This record gives sequence, C-alpha cells and structure tokens, in this order.
Amino acid sequence: MNLALVLRVLAILLALIALFMLLPAGVAWYYGETDLIGSFLTPIVFVLMGAALIFALTRRTERVLAPREGFLLVALSWIGAAAVGAVPAWLSGEIPRYVDAFFETMSGFTTTGATILTNIEALPRALLFWRSLTHWLGGMGIIVLTVAIFPLLGVGGLQLMKAEAPGPSVDKITPKVTETAKILWLIYLGLTVAQTVLLMLGGLDLYEALTHTFGTLATGGFSPKNASVGHYTSAYVHIVVTVFMVMAGTNFILYYKLLTGRFRSVLQDSELKAYFGIYAVVTLVIALILTQAGSYSGFGESLRFAGFQAASILTTTGYATDDFALWPAAAQAVLFSLMFLGGCAGSTGGGMKIVRILTLAKQGVHEMKYLIHPRGVFHISLNGQSVKKSIVYAISGFVFLYIILLLITSLVVASGGYDLVTSFTTALATLGNIGPGFGAIAPTENYAFFQDYIKWYLSFIMMTGRLEVFTILVIFTPHFWRD
Amino acid sequence: MNLALVLRVLAILLALIALFMLLPAGVAWYYGETDLIGSFLTPIVFVLMGAALIFALTRRTERVLAPREGFLLVALSWIGAAAVGAVPAWLSGEIPRYVDAFFETMSGFTTTGATILTNIEALPRALLFWRSLTHWLGGMGIIVLTVAIFPLLGVGGLQLMKAEAPGPSVDKITPKVTETAKILWLIYLGLTVAQTVLLMLGGLDLYEALTHTFGTLATGGFSPKNASVGHYTSAYVHIVVTVFMVMAGTNFILYYKLLTGRFRSVLQDSELKAYFGIYAVVTLVIALILTQAGSYSGFGESLRFAGFQAASILTTTGYATDDFALWPAAAQAVLFSLMFLGGCAGSTGGGMKIVRILTLAKQGVHEMKYLIHPRGVFHISLNGQSVKKSIVYAISGFVFLYIILLLITSLVVASGGYDLVTSFTTALATLGNIGPGFGAIAPTENYAFFQDYIKWYLSFIMMTGRLEVFTILVIFTPHFWRD
Repeated sequence: MNLALVLRVLAILLALIALFMLLPAGVAWYYGETDLIGSFLTPIVFVLMGAALIFALTRRTERVLAPREGFLLVALSWIGAAAVGAVPAWLSGEIPRYVDAFFETMSGFTTTGATILTNIEALPRALLFWRSLTHWLGGMGIIVLTVAIFPLLGVGGLQLMKAEAPGPSVDKITPKVTETAKILWLIYLGLTVAQTVLLMLGGLDLYEALTHTFGTLATGGFSPKNASVGHYTSAYVHIVVTVFMVMAGTNFILYYKLLTGRFRSVLQDSELKAYFGIYAVVTLVIALILTQAGSYSGFGESLRFAGFQAASILTTTGYATDDFALWPAAAQAVLFSLMFLGGCAGSTGGGMKIVRILTLAKQGVHEMKYLIHPRGVFHISLNGQSVKKSIVYAISGFVFLYIILLLITSLVVASGGYDLVTSFTTALATLGNIGPGFGAIAPTENYAFFQDYIKWYLSFIMMTGRLEVFTILVIFTPHFWRD
Repeated sequence: MNLALVLRVLAILLALIALFMLLPAGVAWYYGETDLIGSFLTPIVFVLMGAALIFALTRRTERVLAPREGFLLVALSWIGAAAVGAVPAWLSGEIPRYVDAFFETMSGFTTTGATILTNIEALPRALLFWRSLTHWLGGMGIIVLTVAIFPLLGVGGLQLMKAEAPGPSVDKITPKVTETAKILWLIYLGLTVAQTVLLMLGGLDLYEALTHTFGTLATGGFSPKNASVGHYTSAYVHIVVTVFMVMAGTNFILYYKLLTGRFRSVLQDSELKAYFGIYAVVTLVIALILTQAGSYSGFGESLRFAGFQAASILTTTGYATDDFALWPAAAQAVLFSLMFLGGCAGSTGGGMKIVRILTLAKQGVHEMKYLIHPRGVFHISLNGQSVKKSIVYAISGFVFLYIILLLITSLVVASGGYDLVTSFTTALATLGNIGPGFGAIAPTENYAFFQDYIKWYLSFIMMTGRLEVFTILVIFTPHFWRD
C-alpha cells in the first residue's frame, strides 16, 4: 500500500474543494454577509497549506493507483470533503455543533439531502449556497467515479456493460479516463446552465435557480427554502424540476451517445426502458390514488404532484412539493417501495440502481425456466448482450449486503428509541441517499433530533451507500490490509 | 401435463386430510359438543365420495410425476386442504363467512398462525383442536416436501447439500423417498409425544398440551388461548415451548443423524451453527435491552421473555408470552430484523431460511475478496464442501423474488388504507409464515379487519411463502403451460 501516493492525490482533491469554497465566499461578499467571508477563507488557507505540506513531504511517483489504494482514496476523499466543507458553518456559529455541520456536509457531498436544519431560511445565503454546491460537487464526483473509475476497480453497476462484450465497448466513451471525465463534466455543466436558465424563466432569481439546479442535477435535495420546491406554486417550476430530476437519474453516458447521434443505442438501452417504465407506471398509480382520494383538484394536478414526488424518490433526490406523509396509505406504500430502487447506473442517483434490480428480476424468471426445463440453456441479456454469471453473482452479493446494512442501520437508529417506521425509513433514506422518509423524518421534518452517535453513524452510512457499499466495506476486511 | 395423474394423487391427499377430521369429531363427542359432529362428518363424506369418483373416472398409470405435475400438485394440495379444512368452522356458523374460515385454515396448513378470530376462547374445543391440528399436518407435509420432494424438483434450501458432493450424500437419509418420509414422521411423532408429556408435567391437560404442541412443532403459532402461551404464567411452560420452538426450527435431518450417532456431522453443520449463533446473540441483546428498560424483574426474567420471543419470531412460530409491541423500540427493531430470516432448511420454520442468508453473506465477503485480488480463486463452503455457483445463483433469484413479493404485498395491504408498519409487517408475517407483526397486526391484534380481497390475497401469499415461492410462481409463467 503506497500511502504517500494516496495522500498526494487526496491533497489535490481537497485543495480543489477548498478552492470551490471561494464561490460561497463571493456570494457572502455580494450579499453583504461580510462576517462570513473569514469563515470560508480560514479553511481554504489551512487546506492549501496542508496540501502544500503533503506535497513537500511525499515524493513524486510514476506509479498509478492500485485498486486497494483507489478504494482508500475514494473513502478518504468523501470523509475529507465533509470534514473540510463543514468548517464554515461551524466556524461562523450558524451550526454551532461540529457533528451537525459534518452530518449536513456529508449529506451534501453524498447527494443525500438529509438535513439537521430546523429553520433553513434562517441561515445566511452564502452558507446555503455552499450547502447546495456540495451537492453539485458530490454529484460530479460520483458521475466521474461510476463511469470512469469504478469500472476499473470492479464495482458499481456499470461493469455490466463492460469490456468483454463484442464490438465497441459501451462504457468507455473514449479510451482515456481524463477524456471521459472532461466530456461528462461538460454534459453536467450544460445541464446545469440549461436548468438554471429555465428556472429563471419561471421567475426565480439567479441564486434560487442555481441552488435548486445543484440540488436537482446531483439528485441531492437540499433547497434554501423551508418548504423545498413546494415554496414555488408555479406548475412550470414543478415540471422543470421534475424533468431535470428524471434526467439526472439517467445514465450520463446516454447523453454522450445522443450528442454523437447514436439514437438507436439509447432507445434500446434496457435500463433506460425499465427506468422510464417504472416511473410512468408509478406516477400513474399515485395520480389515480390521489385523484380518487380527492387530494388535489382533479387528475391533472394529481398527476403533477405524483410525477414530481415519484421522480424525487425514484431518483433519490428528496425534493418535495407537498407533504407526502399526509397522502393516502396506498400512495405512501408506493413511494416506500420506490425507496428500494434508485436511479440508473452512471447517474447521480443513489439506491440499489435500476440495472441491478433488472438483472435480478431477469435472474428470478431465469430460475423458474430452469425449474421447468432443468437441462435447458437460458441467458440473461441486457442491451441485447448476454450477461456473464460472475456479474449476476456480484450483484446478488451487493443486494444482500445492502439489505443487511439496511437492517443494521435500522437497529442503530432504533437504539436511540425511535419507532420502526422512523428507524427503517431512516436506513432507506440515508443508505439510498434519498433524504426524507416517513415517521419522524417525513418531508416536513429533519434529522436534528437524533443523538450524536446516530448522526456520526448515519454520516458513515450515507457515504457507504453513495460509494456503492463494497468500496467502503472492503476497507474493513482483514484481507484489505494483508499483503 | 398428465392432469389425471395429478388429480388422482390430490384425491388421495385430500381423502387423508378428511380422515384426519375424524379426530376433532372425536373431540366434539368427548366434550359433548355434539352439534359440531355433523359439521365435521359432512365434508368428510363429500371428500371421500369425490375422491372415489376421481378414482373411478381416471385411469391408473405407472408413470411418476414429472416436475411440472409436482409443482401443480403441491399448490393444489394446499389450496384443497384449506378449502376442505375450512368447511367445519363455516358450516357450524362459528366462523360465519367462508373467506374468514378459508384464511384461518390456510394460515393453519401453512403453519403461519395469523388469525381472524377476535375472541379465540369463544370457539368450541373441537374447532380449536382442528385449527391446531391443521398446523401439525401442514408442518408434517412441509418436512416431507422439503426433505424428500423439493430437492428432486430443484427448489428449497436443501439442494445446497445435495447429490453431487463427494462421499455419502447428506440430504438423502435413505435412498427411497417413502423410507425417508417414514423416518421423518417418526421423528416428528416422537417430538410431539415428548413435548405433550413435558407440557402435561407442567400442569396442562391433554387437550391444551396437544394443541400447543401442534402449534410449536409446526412453528405455527395457533393457541386455543386468547393470550397465547402468555396464558400460562409458569416459567417451566415458557421454557419447554421455547426449547421445542428452537428444535422445530432445526433441520430434521440432523435428528436422524443424532439418532444414528453421527454427532460430529451435526456439530459441524454450518447452518445449525449460524442458527444457534444468531439465536444466542439476539436473545442476549433483547434481554439486555429489556433489563435496561426495567421491563421485567431483573435479567433472568428478561432473558426468559427475550428467549421465548426471539425463538418465536426466528423460527416463524408467532407465539407470544407478552405484547412485544410494548417493548422498547430497539427490542422491536431486533425482532423486526429477525422477521427477514426464518428457520433452518428442512425444518417446519418459514421465512427465507438461515442457509440462504448464510450463503449470501459468504458470497458478499467473497466479492470483497475478489475486489482486492481480482485474479484470486475463492470458494464458498458450507459443511466443509464447496458450494456450486449455480446454487448461489438460484438463491439470489429466490431472495430477490422474496423481496419483490414483500413489496407487492405491502402495496396490496396498503391499498386497503393501512399504514406502512401494518402493511410491511403484514407482508413479512404472511410471506414468512410468522403470524403476528407490528402495527395493526401486533400480537394482541388479529387479521379480522382486513377487506375480503386482502384476506384472499394473503391466503395466497401464505401459501407462496410456505411452498418456497418458486413452486407457486412458476405456475404463473407462460413457460409452465407450454409443451
């Protein structure tokens, strides 16, 4: 294990994040929140000095990161980002306790959107801007990780569509990782500009448009408003956010394919078809339930609220236009079921990911065919290609660990004295990077009341869920530290 | 598909079940509930006549059942048993609506123990005896199925330990299926006598001892008392039931091994070790929580109540000595987690089964080893033998379908207007054949209030869970009906 190399790369990443903190410092200056500027500059200076020190003390090496070093680096990056990113809110006294600031920032960088703030609007604009920006940075980091780095490490859903398949490989947009990253960033940036402009056309100012765009494209869910997107009554705003949530939950490789004219390949994408299929059916079902219950004025409005909330939970964003904890029981149960799914692989969405669910569903059907024809030969196929057994194998391991972690997390939360709904949906909402759940963490509630040890634990779980579970758990195996 | 053959075997099975109804008729005669005797004799006469008719109309064939016919037969047996077994309670007017009687009897034959009775003790003794006897018959059927029939059909957890392994095969106690069945019945009968005698030594009369023994050994959970086993305050009775619940959740093949002196093989059984390990840890944790909360007078009593309830939920029995819905949240969360597990394969216990959980847990660890050493060669082993990939594959398909069914069942229950806890734990308690859950189906509650369509649906789900999911779902695939 080349720890020096890990430290050097970590230093670069943290220095970059520190430099991004100049943006909220600028916001503080613009809005005259001048007492906050120091709270941003202090960590920037310390991180840059620390990074320089690490560079001076470690030697440059030509060697690339080995898988184990990669896992450690990824984990340390998220912990470091949250640790540093938490400083301004804590230093300024706006979030007086460090554990709360750390939780909030980890929730940001993991694009979860779970908040400990009881009155969001009471915070200065610069801090809320930074809070939303952590989403955007975390989302960008995840896309690059899942598309360019994770497949090399052998984790994440995208190895499904990897190398060994005949013809042009589908996951490697261009041969070089840095090239891939650059293209993805441009797409992400393009979507950011597009949504910001569209929201401003709907009457939001630049600040509100940007912060909500950050929360949407990262499938994060932080809003600078107490009522989340429900703050805006305009149907146009709801629809713009809905569309961009659905887009953010889509595999970003597909945008690249669209840009290069490979429409057929996009239309035939198995995961995309399942994703849109699930979204359409669920939206319709919830809309019918809401219409029947008379929750809104007619089917059209029900469809809008259903479409927003289904997109928000399915993509693991966590925005709300209304308190879905007050919806009919059946609509709640549908949303609860969605919490088990998640976005597409290669998107900013969290959860187990559609492609995994799809593969296991096909595997289930497969087993039944075997029962009837024990000597038959059947293949699971995705995107017209046969899926290797070792991948189904890996996915089943993933899903199992995911469920075990859900139960362990429920137990940890329940140990604080919370009821079953709160405990179990807290587990779902943090491991799946969703944000809100049911019970004490319903959309109008928050995570402030949890004991400190639960906040630390949930911070860890948000990170574990965000980084595809294996990436983090592997570090705790004795195997990892053996040579 | 040879439907005539399926019908002939079905006719024999239903005739046998009808003949078993002579026992409660005898109980009715003994206790002077003479008006009930007719309610038992009527279905007996009709079923025997029907069976004779089927025999007359179908030809005898030498052919053994093909897998597909086996699946159909198993499903029809449980449906038929519930349909016939429901008649006495309905005919006598004691359970006035047939849907309720069918649900109660299906709950019995599937060893679930979910009841629609609001005042159990109001029913005549003969009916309560029959109700408990359906557990015992269902449990016996399941042991024979899982040990002797399911492995031949390729379902159930026991194919894990099957044929291809070198040396003497562990699942085939004796080469012939009928021999195997006979030995298992003798063991089952021996345990029944043992528990009945031990309970009578604790002060129960023969009737109470027998009915509680039926509910225990089948991991069913029906009690003729409103307060379940909590009716008895004697610690001795609680402990006897606890021990026999744990024994009923154990693979019955192991008893045969014990009887034939193969102690080492039993002690080295991977599933047994995991089962006892989980049980011991969980009991201790709950006991500590209860002690800390001061729920009972000291650690000893806490341990007794914890041990009883942990055994009851882990083995999917569903008996209660106290209302665990009133226990501290953390203890509830532990019990909730146990609802995902279940007994050992080859036991009367339901749920996903320990051996499946164990295999997937090993598979999860396995994947992490691969991440670190992509070129390494690792094996999953159970009982010292390497597990074939195709089996891990089948298990992952099973677990996935199980979870999908849990979510679908939650949605169906929620469509009746019930909250999340009720909906989700109803799904867990019926698919896992447990009985009680949380919310509206807590131990002191019952299933009476559900709408009829939910009762029919849950009857189907209890059967699907009891028959290893695949066995039932496969019938609904187009593949099944194609030649």
